[in-house]
Order: sequence, then C-alpha cells, then structure tokens
Amino acid sequence: MRFADARVAASFLRVRPTSLGILGLGALGGALARQAKRAGIATVIGWTPEPIVGGLAVRQGALDDTLQTPREVAARAEVVVLAMPPRAAVALLESLGQLRSCSAYFTDTALVKRGAVAAAERAGLGDRFAGSHPLVRAEGGFEYARADLFRGATVYVTPTRTGEGAAREIAHFWESVYEAHTVLLDAAAHDAQLALTEQVPQATAALLARLLAECLPPGATLSEAARETTRAALADPTQWAEALVENRDRLRPALAALRGPLETLDRALDDGDVAAVREWLNVAARWRRGIEGGA
Amino acid sequence: MRFADARVAASFLRVRPTSLGILGLGALGGALARQAKRAGIATVIGWTPEPIVGGLAVRQGALDDTLQTPREVAARAEVVVLAMPPRAAVALLESLGQLRSCSAYFTDTALVKRGAVAAAERAGLGDRFAGSHPLVRAEGGFEYARADLFRGATVYVTPTRTGEGAAREIAHFWESVYEAHTVLLDAAAHDAQLALTEQVPQATAALLARLLAECLPPGATLSEAARETTRAALADPTQWAEALVENRDRLRPALAALRGPLETLDRALDDGDVAAVREWLNVAARWRRGIEGGA
Repeated sequence: MRFADARVAASFLRVRPTSLGILGLGALGGALARQAKRAGIATVIGWTPEPIVGGLAVRQGALDDTLQTPREVAARAEVVVLAMPPRAAVALLESLGQLRSCSAYFTDTALVKRGAVAAAERAGLGDRFAGSHPLVRAEGGFEYARADLFRGATVYVTPTRTGEGAAREIAHFWESVYEAHTVLLDAAAHDAQLALTEQVPQATAALLARLLAECLPPGATLSEAARETTRAALADPTQWAEALVENRDRLRPALAALRGPLETLDRALDDGDVAAVREWLNVAARWRRGIEGGA
Repeated sequence: MRFADARVAASFLRVRPTSLGILGLGALGGALARQAKRAGIATVIGWTPEPIVGGLAVRQGALDDTLQTPREVAARAEVVVLAMPPRAAVALLESLGQLRSCSAYFTDTALVKRGAVAAAERAGLGDRFAGSHPLVRAEGGFEYARADLFRGATVYVTPTRTGEGAAREIAHFWESVYEAHTVLLDAAAHDAQLALTEQVPQATAALLARLLAECLPPGATLSEAARETTRAALADPTQWAEALVENRDRLRPALAALRGPLETLDRALDDGDVAAVREWLNVAARWRRGIEGGA
C-alpha cells in the first residue's frame, strides 16, 4: 500500500483473514478463490447465481463450500468480496446493509468505484467497506480463472468517507493474501484517472476493431500493429458496457480529447507536411518509450 | 506466392540468386543481410551512407563487403534491395535507371508502394523491378537487426505495368531466401488495403499515446490495455511519417472513418444506454475473436 505519510504506514499492522467469502464466480471471482486457497486461507466460501459453477468450484478445490445466499456468506466470513459488475454490486450492497449484526469487512471489484462507495455509505456499511479495483485482465468465466492473477498486480482501494480503517483492512487483505500492490485513492480520483489509464484504451481498441470489422476485405492479412492495437477489444462487453456508462461523466471528455490530435494529424497529412507528421508521431513515441519498463 | 491461376503457379520455377545487394543498413536492411548469409547466399554486398555501420556489418559477417556507391552494388548483384524510406527509394531508383547495362532485379521495402513502382517505370526499370513490403516490425538501427525477421512473414510484391516476370523473380527471392509468404498485389490495391491493415492501427496507437502523454498525471499506473494499445507508437517516426504522407489519399478517409463509431459511442454514453454500449463493444469483440489464430 502506498501512503503519503510514513507514520501512517508504520501504524498499519493487521492479521490475515482466516475466512473469506466470494460473491460471484466469474474469471475474477474464480481467480480470487483459487489464489486464496493456495495462499492457505482456511475457509473460502462462495455464492454464485449459477449452481453448476459453484459445484465445479468446490470439486476443483477453489472453494470449501457454496452457500445459498450472499447473506449466509456474509454472516460466516471475515472478508467478503463482491466480484460482479458495478450495478449488481451496488444492488447487493444495499441489501447487505440491513445485516447490522454482521462483522465482516466488505469490498467489491468493479471497474468504477464511486457507485459502490456511495452505495455502501447509503447502506450504513461506511465503516466496513472499501472499494477495490484490481488492475488485471480477467476474461472468460470461472473455467478461465487463474491462480496467480493478482500476484504483483496494482489494486486500487477506495475508502468511504468514514472508512479509513476499513480501507486499511482491505488493502492488507490484498497484500497479505494476494501479494498485490495496493494504492489508496479517493473514488472520484480513481474514476477520473482510470477513465484515461484503462477506459479510453479499451474504447480505442474497440473503435479500431469496429473500423476494421466494417472496412476490411475478407481474408486481408493484418499487421502486428493491427492485432495488438485491437487486442483489448476481446474484453467482456457486458462488464465493460456498464463500467463505461457508470463513468460517462469522466469518460466522455476523455474520449472527446482524441479529436484534437486526430484533426492535427489530418491537417498535417492534408498539407503533405512530413515534418509535422513526424513530430506528431514523435510525441507519441517519446511518451511510449518513457513507459517501457515503467509502471 | 498466392496465384489466382494455378497454371501460372505451375510455370513458375526460378533459381535462387547467388549474389545479393542491399542498399541501406537499418534494422530491416541488416536483417535482410543476416538472414541471407545464414541462408547460404554466396555473396552479400551492401551500401550504406554510414561507413561505421557498413564496417560493423562486414565484421559481424552480415555482409561480405560494402561498396562505395549504390551503382557499384547494382553492377555486381543479381538481386538488389533498396531498404530505405519511400522518398529515398524513389530518388535512388530514378538515378539507378540510367544503368542500362545492369542485369539485376530490383526491389524496395518501403511501407507504401505506388511511388516506387511509378519511379521504376519512369526510370525504365519496369521489366526489372517489383515493389516489396514485408509485413514485419523492424525497429531500431542495424544493431537491432534480427536474423529470422522474415521467416513466415507476409511479403507483398507489387508489379510494374510490364513487370510480371520481375515480380515472380522477386517473389521467388523472398520465398527461397527468406522463407516468407508472398502475396502479389497491384500497388494501388496494396496502398488502399495497407492504409487499413497497418497505417490506421499505427496512427490509432499514436493517437492514444498522445492523449495519455498530454492528460495523465505523472506516475499513474497504466492498464495492460493502455500499454498494449499504444505499443505500435514505438515505431520509427521518421519512416512512418513519410509513409503516411505518401499514402494520404488513402489514409485520410480511413482515419476519418473512425469518427462515425466514436460519435455512436458518445451518443450511447450520453443516453446512459448500457445495451447500446454493449452492442457497440460486441461488434468489436466478435471481430477480434474472429481473427484470433487467423492470418
């Protein structure tokens, strides 16, 4: 976890949970379960709306048990992770808030964070919740879940207004169980930053893929650049559509900012100005070289 | 080489050249030299405007000798490759055309093909020239040249109006020496297709990189999607600027076609329409899944 203040870091010392509840068993929830069992968490229980997947998870040793409802899981685990898209997480948090007797810490893993943080506050879970966003690629369903998905990954942890303590618990959970690097960030700052670092890249890859889908002659060989620049378009449209819509106040200005440089390039091309096009490309190349080997 | 007509393919039988001339020793020219020597071509000679690079190539065994001028190379090789950006290739072809006594076959490796093909025709080399465009990534200078860059790669071969025979010689050269897959394509069709399969992806990667260069807070962690979708922006701006400008009549409409889907996405976001955003992403995801494992 990165702290602005070293004294805060020094005061931070928690124990690893011995019981973990996972709500939702897609590729991300599945990876959470597998890695937790490998890390030696004694009890890993889960809930999924798909009983077949739940049974599979237990047979494969990713879960110790599946329970009938999210509430039963919440009642029996020290940490509960909602591994589901943003709107489902918001709805579930609102219903879990009525569990006043429950002592678990909660987090979610949605790609945008203001919604879940606000829902936790509304539900009276402000002191027991922090949002999480693991910056990982979890594609496909449970059957694609990896057991090392979070090792070394960046996980953003976004506190509620009164949840600094809960945010530290959740950050410690990610670091001690998953060997992830956590970054504490206000939910609004998270959503603004991730609009640029994750959502615009996803949308740009899909934008190029759409153009090629429409215009390419069938069977045309693609360059490595075409394959690579559209790779992110393989991400799950259902999950991403919700995230993009939820974050649209941040995303739309960021996407609109693509138009300026696109017009600059078009003008330079129209003028046949090789030096101007070279400089346009140079700005991009310099920045890209700067991140090689970087974060 | 792909032929539309099987009888043409059957009549195609050449011998591999025993002497090869390479004009220009960047990453691509260097790779041409290294792989030719490994493939057992007896004499590989070269010319470069940078004597230090020429000396290095000879010492490393990539070339047997460097000569003082492109003309001397052309006079002593059966196949001569101009491995340089489009405008330099055009200028050199025009000057080589005066070598009426020379019996070599010529090709170039620029990213766009109409210019070189027209220059060869103007210079009276129409019967001895075909353009080539190896669809490979050759970055950095001679020191980065790989010895297996062309193995299994697609190489477009673009004939002049009267150069069907020369195009077959050049295609055979790529296949027999470099184990590449050649595709015979008219230069205009090549430039139209590659605007989509290579140039728009390059420009899109740079476009995203420019946005991130301008807007990101320093030290912000990037998603895998951001790294991958901007990877192509590392390509050499000098080489690409010329190619994009040379092909601007094809490239500008292709780039302009990005605006339609961008506006569709923006409208769906503005409406908060998750189903519309999902379908927008779905078109991209379906296309991208379709090319996995494909060409």
